[in-house]
Amino acid sequence: MALWGGRFSGQTDKELTGFSESVSFDKRLYKYDIMGSKAHAAMLAEQGIIPRAAADAIAVELDEIEERIDEGDFKFSAELEDIHMHIENALIEKLGDEGARVHSARSRNDQIALDIRLYLRDAVTGICAMIRDFQRALVEQAAGNGDAIMPGFTHLQHAQPVLFGHHLLAYVEMLERDIERLEDCSKRINVMPLGSGALAGSTLKIDREEVCRALNFSRVTRNSMDAVADRDFIIEFISDLAIFAMHVSRLSEDIILWCSQEFSFVELDDAFCTGSSLMPQKKNPDIAELSRGKTARVYGALTAILTLCKGLPLTYNRDLQEDKEPLFDAVDTVKRILRLYPAMVATMRIRREKMLAAASDPALMATDLAEKLVEIGVPFRNAHHRVGAFVKWCRDKNKALNETTLKEMRETIPEATAEFLELFSPESSVAKREITGATGPKAVAAQIEFWKKKLS
Amino acid sequence: MALWGGRFSGQTDKELTGFSESVSFDKRLYKYDIMGSKAHAAMLAEQGIIPRAAADAIAVELDEIEERIDEGDFKFSAELEDIHMHIENALIEKLGDEGARVHSARSRNDQIALDIRLYLRDAVTGICAMIRDFQRALVEQAAGNGDAIMPGFTHLQHAQPVLFGHHLLAYVEMLERDIERLEDCSKRINVMPLGSGALAGSTLKIDREEVCRALNFSRVTRNSMDAVADRDFIIEFISDLAIFAMHVSRLSEDIILWCSQEFSFVELDDAFCTGSSLMPQKKNPDIAELSRGKTARVYGALTAILTLCKGLPLTYNRDLQEDKEPLFDAVDTVKRILRLYPAMVATMRIRREKMLAAASDPALMATDLAEKLVEIGVPFRNAHHRVGAFVKWCRDKNKALNETTLKEMRETIPEATAEFLELFSPESSVAKREITGATGPKAVAAQIEFWKKKLS
Amino acid sequence: MALWGGRFSGQTDKELTGFSESVSFDKRLYKYDIMGSKAHAAMLAEQGIIPRAAADAIAVELDEIEERIDEGDFKFSAELEDIHMHIENALIEKLGDEGARVHSARSRNDQIALDIRLYLRDAVTGICAMIRDFQRALVEQAAGNGDAIMPGFTHLQHAQPVLFGHHLLAYVEMLERDIERLEDCSKRINVMPLGSGALAGSTLKIDREEVCRALNFSRVTRNSMDAVADRDFIIEFISDLAIFAMHVSRLSEDIILWCSQEFSFVELDDAFCTGSSLMPQKKNPDIAELSRGKTARVYGALTAILTLCKGLPLTYNRDLQEDKEPLFDAVDTVKRILRLYPAMVATMRIRREKMLAAASDPALMATDLAEKLVEIGVPFRNAHHRVGAFVKWCRDKNKALNETTLKEMRETIPEATAEFLELFSPESSVAKREITGATGPKAVAAQIEFWKKKLS
Amino acid sequence: MALWGGRFSGQTDKELTGFSESVSFDKRLYKYDIMGSKAHAAMLAEQGIIPRAAADAIAVELDEIEERIDEGDFKFSAELEDIHMHIENALIEKLGDEGARVHSARSRNDQIALDIRLYLRDAVTGICAMIRDFQRALVEQAAGNGDAIMPGFTHLQHAQPVLFGHHLLAYVEMLERDIERLEDCSKRINVMPLGSGALAGSTLKIDREEVCRALNFSRVTRNSMDAVADRDFIIEFISDLAIFAMHVSRLSEDIILWCSQEFSFVELDDAFCTGSSLMPQKKNPDIAELSRGKTARVYGALTAILTLCKGLPLTYNRDLQEDKEPLFDAVDTVKRILRLYPAMVATMRIRREKMLAAASDPALMATDLAEKLVEIGVPFRNAHHRVGAFVKWCRDKNKALNETTLKEMRETIPEATAEFLELFSPESSVAKREITGATGPKAVAAQIEFWKKKLS
Repeated sequence: MALWGGRFSGQTDKELTGFSESVSFDKRLYKYDIMGSKAHAAMLAEQGIIPRAAADAIAVELDEIEERIDEGDFKFSAELEDIHMHIENALIEKLGDEGARVHSARSRNDQIALDIRLYLRDAVTGICAMIRDFQRALVEQAAGNGDAIMPGFTHLQHAQPVLFGHHLLAYVEMLERDIERLEDCSKRINVMPLGSGALAGSTLKIDREEVCRALNFSRVTRNSMDAVADRDFIIEFISDLAIFAMHVSRLSEDIILWCSQEFSFVELDDAFCTGSSLMPQKKNPDIAELSRGKTARVYGALTAILTLCKGLPLTYNRDLQEDKEPLFDAVDTVKRILRLYPAMVATMRIRREKMLAAASDPALMATDLAEKLVEIGVPFRNAHHRVGAFVKWCRDKNKALNETTLKEMRETIPEATAEFLELFSPESSVAKREITGATGPKAVAAQIEFWKKKLS
Repeated sequence: MALWGGRFSGQTDKELTGFSESVSFDKRLYKYDIMGSKAHAAMLAEQGIIPRAAADAIAVELDEIEERIDEGDFKFSAELEDIHMHIENALIEKLGDEGARVHSARSRNDQIALDIRLYLRDAVTGICAMIRDFQRALVEQAAGNGDAIMPGFTHLQHAQPVLFGHHLLAYVEMLERDIERLEDCSKRINVMPLGSGALAGSTLKIDREEVCRALNFSRVTRNSMDAVADRDFIIEFISDLAIFAMHVSRLSEDIILWCSQEFSFVELDDAFCTGSSLMPQKKNPDIAELSRGKTARVYGALTAILTLCKGLPLTYNRDLQEDKEPLFDAVDTVKRILRLYPAMVATMRIRREKMLAAASDPALMATDLAEKLVEIGVPFRNAHHRVGAFVKWCRDKNKALNETTLKEMRETIPEATAEFLELFSPESSVAKREITGATGPKAVAAQIEFWKKKLS
Repeated sequence: MALWGGRFSGQTDKELTGFSESVSFDKRLYKYDIMGSKAHAAMLAEQGIIPRAAADAIAVELDEIEERIDEGDFKFSAELEDIHMHIENALIEKLGDEGARVHSARSRNDQIALDIRLYLRDAVTGICAMIRDFQRALVEQAAGNGDAIMPGFTHLQHAQPVLFGHHLLAYVEMLERDIERLEDCSKRINVMPLGSGALAGSTLKIDREEVCRALNFSRVTRNSMDAVADRDFIIEFISDLAIFAMHVSRLSEDIILWCSQEFSFVELDDAFCTGSSLMPQKKNPDIAELSRGKTARVYGALTAILTLCKGLPLTYNRDLQEDKEPLFDAVDTVKRILRLYPAMVATMRIRREKMLAAASDPALMATDLAEKLVEIGVPFRNAHHRVGAFVKWCRDKNKALNETTLKEMRETIPEATAEFLELFSPESSVAKREITGATGPKAVAAQIEFWKKKLS
Repeated sequence: MALWGGRFSGQTDKELTGFSESVSFDKRLYKYDIMGSKAHAAMLAEQGIIPRAAADAIAVELDEIEERIDEGDFKFSAELEDIHMHIENALIEKLGDEGARVHSARSRNDQIALDIRLYLRDAVTGICAMIRDFQRALVEQAAGNGDAIMPGFTHLQHAQPVLFGHHLLAYVEMLERDIERLEDCSKRINVMPLGSGALAGSTLKIDREEVCRALNFSRVTRNSMDAVADRDFIIEFISDLAIFAMHVSRLSEDIILWCSQEFSFVELDDAFCTGSSLMPQKKNPDIAELSRGKTARVYGALTAILTLCKGLPLTYNRDLQEDKEPLFDAVDTVKRILRLYPAMVATMRIRREKMLAAASDPALMATDLAEKLVEIGVPFRNAHHRVGAFVKWCRDKNKALNETTLKEMRETIPEATAEFLELFSPESSVAKREITGATGPKAVAAQIEFWKKKLS
């Protein structure tokens, strides 16, 4: 022990406890643990495995424990390892033998699977409701200022004029898919694992369907080994949150750009920025920046949980205890974003004149010219070439596209008529885009109505 | 230019072309690109935007082009950048002005979105069918050898006896979820983006619903800016593949363990191993190891696509061109695994006697003792303590659990009866676990029937 | 505001503060923040920018503040955002105008860069010292039990006999590289950023070299914009920790395998396992499993920080505030592993007879036969074929390799002599491997001496 | 076999070969494999293990094989699995028994470790040289246009004026760290693994030091098991590339912003953009966008290799074959970026007047005012408050900061003198920042000289 051992000491015990314990983070599952224990005990009584009186006493005492935890009046200690042991222990302390019956036909392996599923069912519901609010804020902003005309960007270059409302509704679509994905995930969350025991089920004659009904699950798990080893639903859920966060990061990028001195398209409410009493021009879009940054955090949680599960043999391995912290962090991160972002969006002020000015370069209407040519029968690729030649002609002459005469235009576009000269306003450009999904004012108004109805 | 510039030369042009081109990988989309162009051209004719004769000629020539590509009789070159340009170019070369009409009211931005969606629709169908085969192989193996008794593991320690079939069916469950997830994803894939143009729709009076019907999509996209910027469906799809790959990595870990000299539970068919003419004991489970390794690759693809999309402003940015290689690599990786893995599983040979021997330690039946005590009314936690004391007693006396007399057992378990002495066989242990999802022979047989029916 | 706005309320302010604040996690930097402020104030006085008396008062009061924080006697509040504001505020509260001078020629942008660098310098030193302890524990175990012979594995199949000490020393090598990497990283950490201001330096005549000397950095940063935007050193550091964690995950996998009933090569001290009073066979290698699981967490932190920095424009963006939580979590995780793992390794008990039995299959010595043939002049590939044929012959006759007569051996290996029959003991197999880096007892003993010396 | 087996067929063999082979990607290592074999054979002869004549013949034939592969005149086939087998096979085909001697005392496990290390040694050298070119391009651009004044950004908001050259040199610093990291990594690459055999070394009396010298490595590996299991150097290397790619993504973001119509700070040479004959305003910064996108790909490779190695038991496992494709893809990606990016930077044209205009808002000089106050003895925090009040006063009066009289300024800044009115030009603002690392013209010029010298 010359080289190393001198350091192995009493300190180690405390370290060991700290390393293994999970109660510091899994205590947030207490409501779900209690909910599950009540349903389990009631079923045990129903099946005659424990006395009815015991089940009743357990139920009463569990409510009591929940209340104590609610009120911060419950002592947690790393020695009791996890939330399950804390609650069972408290039961036994109070009820003695009656309490000692609750863990019949159950293992912590199926119990934690139950708790997380109950927790996630609520998390999905909560987050979906908050995303709905986010959609409402976007639709509201679109309803109020959505007719402002701005340049649409590809490659961060001006491409064609679009309505500001159309741009915002793109995000409403993304959020709608986020909700759909979470709802699909909840089908896989909403399956009842209790009764799987440590891994092989139980020799006691329990009624899993009864617990399933009591806890409002859609069905029971079909294989006990799968049930205690499965963390798919966590991965799928975090993956859904990662896509949501990615959407937020894109909107944040847009907003950060719009707030720059160079763009100056929108102004955020002061509440969502830090200014500087020194540098008056500084009004930093902190919430947008932090939200973009927090996307990285959700990606990190996804990487962690995927890595965790890779290559684990069946069934439960202690590694899986590491599933909860990334999960909780992802949920917290997303909820924090969702509590602020809608208000920031709803209170954004728009600089219509800046947007319109940026969208007014007649060059943005070049596509309209080409499509006009198609309308009168010119094959598209040829139309495209003719407009290209026209644009080049204008550049060579150092003229804007709308500064030419019809005669000049005909040098490169022989088919041009007087109507062609009218194509250079951003207003008329958007006005002609009224097919489904396009940026025309009627199409966008219809979409706003669609969403208002859906979200009300 | 003293410090650096001397190196900027003619070589750069070639480098630039190579850097920007995508045809070297997106050419695999040609069938989908052609399918889309046919539907688009037909609609243009229907709407009077191009002549019917042009649409017909285009359709015929597109079939011709498809055939040429099928047969390797089509020249690709980096200068024409991508598959879209290659096909349009070939059309124009052959049909002149008629061909030049096909790209009316379309942009490469909505066209590539369409192509990937068509591709992914097929990919989902193909992969789901292959996963079904994988399930069949597992069920077949379970049907043949599923009654073998083996130790079930937690923490890679013997826990309780289970049926080999039960262990295999755990993976059938995982694969079922993989299929469900892919099918849910396909709802979001199966939406028609064409008509979104570069980003703002079109000024031409196209009929998007017609194209939607023709290509058998479930609906059209509702927002043109979202439609060209959206890669959610790729992320979700790769995320589903990542979970599938994780399942494969777990089964691979199990199989690699089972093939070790220490476990010797199964023997793989020689076809799926490399042996060594030198080291006869070496029969390496290469396919399982490589499959476990390839999981890492799918995770890498997921990281890449998530990172790619983070923080991009709307709408299309050229970064998105980098979406396809990770996607294709993930699809190829998963399909290659799926083409081999089922055969490997179906041809595995089982060493029942090794499995049974490992499961026969009476210590694995300790839980059965405790549950027996619960059956006769002892509160579980007390039962647990009694059995613990019994086990300690046996260890102190250096006896196996099944080597004690009833009298001896009663020293620590006063409630014990003669029946208790019968609890130490793995056969009777599994036989008592017949609740839904548990490892009892009847429960497992019922599951095998369930899956046989579902998979036939 | 019908759709959404009703919900925007007083709650939002609190949410905003909570969203933006960093003091809840950056307070752990207080010692470094104080150390930096003392050096900065002293330099300001030296340069005549602030009075000497002010600098002295600031230094005294900063010590006071440090002591208060040490003792938990300092109030933190989210309103004051970060650790910098807390400390400056406390200074001003106590010293008034004198305290108000400390932030001259400084910005929080260069201040936080300084704090993290000081923190990381200590973190590297601390972690390297702990890794040294880990190496000591491995070397000690190797010194005590390293001569035990076990099968070396490739593909988790028995390959050739090796010494247990050789296996352990492989991990000592890995850990040595971990230290090297961290020390290399510290060269890039140990650069002094203060004086970079918000991004452009300062108009005040500060002396950065003086602060550099006072804080014992190796040089000052050369570009102020880079200095406030740079988080490379965090990424590199976490990446080094990720590789370290990967090493731990591999050793954990080995130990978990060795602890399985099937291998039974080692037994861990009870302190590092959870047993079960019920299932006596269960002695779960929890610390190894949790450590393997925690690897995922460090990978997650690396993904997060890499994602965070991607695509950020210069210079500081608020996203960067999200750098600290993954960093701190990675440090904590690695340190927790390092506080326990060495003791677990040092107290492992070895089952020599189990190891030796597993290594004693004569088939593991097949390579020795082939190399013997090379020694007497047979080309290796031919030797390899001959031994292959011999092995096949044995298998066909159902004989172990060491059960043949010389005559029998010569049917497939005509060159065989009596000496060949002596090649089948694992002891002689390892004894012949004495080249540098090989598993021979002398080579391994020399390595143990090498490490003992290096680590003492 | 009813459910599944019908599909198991002759096709499987081909699939198996395709699944296991690595020659399709590891063939790029042929030069290194040959270099290693030559050194190995020479040493074997020197040690008397093979005849000198054999070693000579092998060397000649290996050169011949290298030439054939160089010229595309060598047949690769999946059946021969990997590059090692191809080359040994070709040797034996030509030289018979002499060729059959080359693989003495060697295994593919140590051989591939050698090959990758040789490959990486070159990759590091090549990439570092290319990064040097990149630095040269930046320094050249800085030397030519570096005195242009632009706004420095934090939070993408105007903060303080900086020199364009200062901004570019920030990237030169980042690239310098990239080179340092790669050079540090090469210390760990440059260690010679041959002689480690399959995992346990060799019984033949080889001279590893001789091979080490011949191949110019700095030392031999010290532990054979570590040597065949180690992939650290790949992870570290890809991690270094990931940080480099992150730097590229940040510069790309800057350039993409600068090229937007809103910023219009720089114009890229047409060669590095795609324009549009139709939309003349579109000059898309494709190379910058694609490079930013390709960062994601390098991150994906890092995730893959880290995931791959996690939890693998010692020593070699077949999973490790999956190390090469992410490695090669990362190298190729980085090299492709490096072949184009310097030229793009060197040919960028600057719009000085746009930059200067953006930097000319007097509000950007507010910090200078506060620091002026510090200079004359006002405590910084008070100075900060005074300037804040002044700024507010100006805003209330709707005046720019430089439109006030001294009398007006004194209402909020009583200490102001006439000198204060001169502080509002961006030229004088940068001119006062001449401390090390700051943006003053002399400081920046000194840095340019520093780099020119270092890079010449």
